[in-house]
Amino acid sequence: MKIQNYQDVPELKMESDQVKGVSGRVVIGKDDHADNFCMRVFTVEPGGFTPRHSHEWEHEVFVHSGKGQVYQNGEWRDVVSGTAVFIPGNEEHQFMNAGAEDFVFICLIPSGVDEI
Amino acid sequence: MKIQNYQDVPELKMESDQVKGVSGRVVIGKDDHADNFCMRVFTVEPGGFTPRHSHEWEHEVFVHSGKGQVYQNGEWRDVVSGTAVFIPGNEEHQFMNAGAEDFVFICLIPSGVDEI
Repeated sequence: MKIQNYQDVPELKMESDQVKGVSGRVVIGKDDHADNFCMRVFTVEPGGFTPRHSHEWEHEVFVHSGKGQVYQNGEWRDVVSGTAVFIPGNEEHQFMNAGAEDFVFICLIPSGVDEI
Repeated sequence: MKIQNYQDVPELKMESDQVKGVSGRVVIGKDDHADNFCMRVFTVEPGGFTPRHSHEWEHEVFVHSGKGQVYQNGEWRDVVSGTAVFIPGNEEHQFMNAGAEDFVFICLIPSGVDEI
């Protein structure tokens, strides 16, 4: 059993023209011998956003804290602490912080793709 | 894409000599065509606990809110909002609420086993 607060996991800061103010952490993954799926936690600063993209694999997301929006088929939809989001493979998506505090969400992916 | 607050998902109440004060919800699963893994959310009332058991499949857990403890190899370990827990297959485990508020955690399992 592995027990660890996500904030104690080293973060990877992401910054480009596609991504702003995002830090990602792999909290449960292949290094833990989790062979079926991988848990990451992303922190998006106020004003920040993840890339708008699509890929073959799905996401299972749970919003831990803060206020955000997710891009779905041309519209931005509100997501808050306690919102679950399922993004099937090949569906375009993007997350942004829509509040004044950090926007923190858990995002799981199947094993076999890059963990972060 | 499916966007839904976990509290809007019908809950299954669990109560027996093995389980006390626990409600479970399948928030992303086979009904959503999530074919690789399943996200459930469990709410444990103050004084409540999940069954102590083991099974072949793993759990990937993230504590959303409240204070709890997890049973690991004869000891109870504290878990709080933001703690991630990886429980490999066949490892005995149990969760209990150790606070005065609801203890809420997300628990993911691979597809192919009972969702709740």
